[in-house]
Amino acid sequence: MFKNILFCLEFCIALASGMYVVDPGPRYPPTKGEVWPKPQYENKEKFYMTFNPANFEINTTALSCNILTNAVERYAFIVKRKLNTKSHQRLLKRRRKHTFTVIQDTNKEMYNIGDLTKLEIELLAPCQDYPYLGMDESYELIISERSKLSSMSVWGILRGLETWTQLFYFTDDYNEIRINKTHISDFPRYQHRGLLLDTSRHYISLSNILRTLDAMAMNKMNVFHWHIVDDQSFPYQSEIFPNLSEKGAFHPSMIYTKADIGLVVNYARDRGIRVMPEFDVPGHTRSWGNAYPDTLTECYLNGQLIGLGPMNPINNGTYKLLEELIKEVQQWFPDKYFHVGGDEVELECWRSNPDLQKYMKEHNLTAAQLHALFMENVLPLLGSSKAVVWQEVFDEGVPLAEDTIVQVWKYDWVNEMIRILKTGRKLIFSSSWYLDHLKTGGDWIDYYLADPREMVIDKIGNDTSSLDKIIGGEACMWGEVVDDTNVISRVWPRASATAERLWSSPTDSLRTYSRSTPNARSYDPLDGVRQRLEEHTCRMRRRGIRAQPPSGPGFCVGAI
Amino acid sequence: MFKNILFCLEFCIALASGMYVVDPGPRYPPTKGEVWPKPQYENKEKFYMTFNPANFEINTTALSCNILTNAVERYAFIVKRKLNTKSHQRLLKRRRKHTFTVIQDTNKEMYNIGDLTKLEIELLAPCQDYPYLGMDESYELIISERSKLSSMSVWGILRGLETWTQLFYFTDDYNEIRINKTHISDFPRYQHRGLLLDTSRHYISLSNILRTLDAMAMNKMNVFHWHIVDDQSFPYQSEIFPNLSEKGAFHPSMIYTKADIGLVVNYARDRGIRVMPEFDVPGHTRSWGNAYPDTLTECYLNGQLIGLGPMNPINNGTYKLLEELIKEVQQWFPDKYFHVGGDEVELECWRSNPDLQKYMKEHNLTAAQLHALFMENVLPLLGSSKAVVWQEVFDEGVPLAEDTIVQVWKYDWVNEMIRILKTGRKLIFSSSWYLDHLKTGGDWIDYYLADPREMVIDKIGNDTSSLDKIIGGEACMWGEVVDDTNVISRVWPRASATAERLWSSPTDSLRTYSRSTPNARSYDPLDGVRQRLEEHTCRMRRRGIRAQPPSGPGFCVGAI
Repeated sequence: MFKNILFCLEFCIALASGMYVVDPGPRYPPTKGEVWPKPQYENKEKFYMTFNPANFEINTTALSCNILTNAVERYAFIVKRKLNTKSHQRLLKRRRKHTFTVIQDTNKEMYNIGDLTKLEIELLAPCQDYPYLGMDESYELIISERSKLSSMSVWGILRGLETWTQLFYFTDDYNEIRINKTHISDFPRYQHRGLLLDTSRHYISLSNILRTLDAMAMNKMNVFHWHIVDDQSFPYQSEIFPNLSEKGAFHPSMIYTKADIGLVVNYARDRGIRVMPEFDVPGHTRSWGNAYPDTLTECYLNGQLIGLGPMNPINNGTYKLLEELIKEVQQWFPDKYFHVGGDEVELECWRSNPDLQKYMKEHNLTAAQLHALFMENVLPLLGSSKAVVWQEVFDEGVPLAEDTIVQVWKYDWVNEMIRILKTGRKLIFSSSWYLDHLKTGGDWIDYYLADPREMVIDKIGNDTSSLDKIIGGEACMWGEVVDDTNVISRVWPRASATAERLWSSPTDSLRTYSRSTPNARSYDPLDGVRQRLEEHTCRMRRRGIRAQPPSGPGFCVGAI
Repeated sequence: MFKNILFCLEFCIALASGMYVVDPGPRYPPTKGEVWPKPQYENKEKFYMTFNPANFEINTTALSCNILTNAVERYAFIVKRKLNTKSHQRLLKRRRKHTFTVIQDTNKEMYNIGDLTKLEIELLAPCQDYPYLGMDESYELIISERSKLSSMSVWGILRGLETWTQLFYFTDDYNEIRINKTHISDFPRYQHRGLLLDTSRHYISLSNILRTLDAMAMNKMNVFHWHIVDDQSFPYQSEIFPNLSEKGAFHPSMIYTKADIGLVVNYARDRGIRVMPEFDVPGHTRSWGNAYPDTLTECYLNGQLIGLGPMNPINNGTYKLLEELIKEVQQWFPDKYFHVGGDEVELECWRSNPDLQKYMKEHNLTAAQLHALFMENVLPLLGSSKAVVWQEVFDEGVPLAEDTIVQVWKYDWVNEMIRILKTGRKLIFSSSWYLDHLKTGGDWIDYYLADPREMVIDKIGNDTSSLDKIIGGEACMWGEVVDDTNVISRVWPRASATAERLWSSPTDSLRTYSRSTPNARSYDPLDGVRQRLEEHTCRMRRRGIRAQPPSGPGFCVGAI
């Protein structure tokens, strides 16, 4: 069957459209041993080594630390257990009554140069305790008779170990595991490569958060943006304000304790991932009001009280609660950045409240200016933490520290980015990567084609140096439509498209890419990407991530 | 928290739009003990009984048979194990450090009239071996001091047991299981309530097929339409033509053996579900060609052979293979109906083939007429089975037996249905229920509003008797975008909307329903449906079905 497909890949795709000849087998046959996200520089030779898990060791030849030894243990386990010809042979034979034709390996131009028996890891500078914005993630990996992974940073070693694991592949008959003679020199294009997970609209179990971190590591993403509370529920279990989750969580079992958060932070750190907490204020705070209704604003309609709205910006108690809570959060989340939200404030509620009406009149403020004032009051409460804010805070002209990062999420994002860059501020981009928005037929191609720097480069004039201020982006998994049943399959491999775009953006020609018509079988420059993503999806599934099919018909062997 | 929500349900929704006040907690709080699909006639009184799994029995007072005893065992297990206050108490206490406020039950107008200790089952006519089109599924259920479920048919008993299980509910503090004094008299509106599952574009494991049957039973669906093979793979393992799956399956482990099919058929029968096989011909057959290339047509472009297309309609071998294979399939699938497909034939390929060009010229046939001829040749091969065909077969004027069922799936479905009804033929409807089509924000409301009889009723003139010929419909889960990672969460609870529409279509006012604007909090007649679906979704999850969130923020307690 594979033969037919590969035959067809070579010949059929050159067809003019007009007739749609379907091939049996997967729509995009997976590659073998291709790395996702694609490394910046990669040279594969026509030689391969065979791999026998029983006869293999990893040595750390220079510096080491806990993060490194944990990683070595983890990846040794992966290659020894997940890359195991025996389990695949079992599967292959399981329900087979007849002899299947053994398919010859398609690439016959490869030469065996012996066994891979060793990987040397050379860490050239002392470990750092926590990952941080701008950390060095570069590494060099040489796979040959003497394989070596080296980096100036433990974070680079982590990235390199992941790459190394991805280079292995099975022969078509699953009798042999191979790895090609390869030279990789790799580093990220963007510093901030994040995934936002919203645990308020639905509770997400700890195990699915940890699984998400595993998947992020497989995709070299480095920021877990934890949108932990929102209007609907308050699962963060504060020790100083226990009432917040006691009255604001969906259910007593649906909370994150200090220990849970510690586990997430450490698990992420071991994988070179920062955990950035978001406590979104003053909007998106309705669940806070179950315990502390006074911190919210009473909204009126035609003189009638109709419910609670955003935080009350003229109540000192609001700021007091925030100040104390932020201190606790900072202790539990060691990241230097703290996301304080600031999006979608229901100003209409503020305008409806008699006390606020009076205050705005006295101080000659519009409701938008009151929002700006609120943020101005909150930002100093972060102390030594640096702030990340949604774009509204910038739009409303709140004076922002130079190192505040603005997150762009709305329409008209190109002009918004240009406006932010003109003030010299850093930004992260999310508008194109809202994972809750669905589209029939797989939308990851759209994600893949979105590159925030490429979007603005033609419009920014001569000052291209400011492009560096676009420090990255985040795929956002808002929680309205996902819970434990589908969050993993909804995020992966769709977020992998964002991940590759932010890591290495391999296809220069994409700037002029336009989607071909669905039924045309003419050559598509993204077909290679699609094939690599098929392999990567099956790889994630072998490692316990329920990644959904990315591009139509196909299958994964030996995967969940 | 619940209090706030219920308060708000009563008051807030009466608000005029203009300000969007968000409530904490679930967007649509689940109902308690409401049945999905809603019974035709249901009277609940203000009395409830308490339920203690340890002190309860089910008695069969009249006829019985294997299907019935299996069902009693199954449902007894469900109510005793899944409705267990202890496991919920454990969950409730698990990570709770502080005392949660015990929320009072909201409906205080209910009066306890003792324990429910017994259910009598009265089957009034002998069991039938297999479910069939038009079987009697009606039942009567009385929950009171002496509870009784009665039906003239074992299929009705199955439906009634499912209903009975769904009537139980927990008190808000999970200390008590209750069931209300209730009288239900129920029967289906449409005879054919199906789900199509495509196991060719991706292989679906046996366990997920069985889980799908469980979910169908929970939604009172009665036809599992197994689109078992297609262009991409041939997982049906024939005993007389083993090469078909040997060369056509994705992988040796990705097949359905005779034993597998027997298991599915029996599992379905025990749940009152028919299993209707589809072997789609002459298009969608590319995977057959791996073993039998001669049965397919060679397609040409500019005189060059470019691949294989639909079955070859002038090769006797094609019909011979079909004849033999159909006989085997009929032995393995006892259903009276056999789906032979007939959709999306690539006529362009037939037109390109020199032999077919010659044949069409000699017999003065167009390619469409050749398709009609092919179907005319195939239909008699079904012998005593009745045929189901996709609408193209009708459209092309193939002479169809009076009892052939036409499945409507394309656009312009209203006119198509009217055309079919005018010939006196039966049809099943699917156009509005393609589960592979995605839409942000949950599309089940669109499914819910689609009612094939309501669509044509105004256009059909006086002869409304022909409406009965619309015997039902099917939700279709095509396999391009789903595999074992996401098939369950993608189908459920979206297909539940189709299921309720086909069973009882409870809301008469829907004919004039139009979707309200998203942010308006004005009263929406579908809110009650949304709340019932929340409960049903959690119920499915407690029973092992990974149903995804139907309508935004919320949570399920004690569920996967």
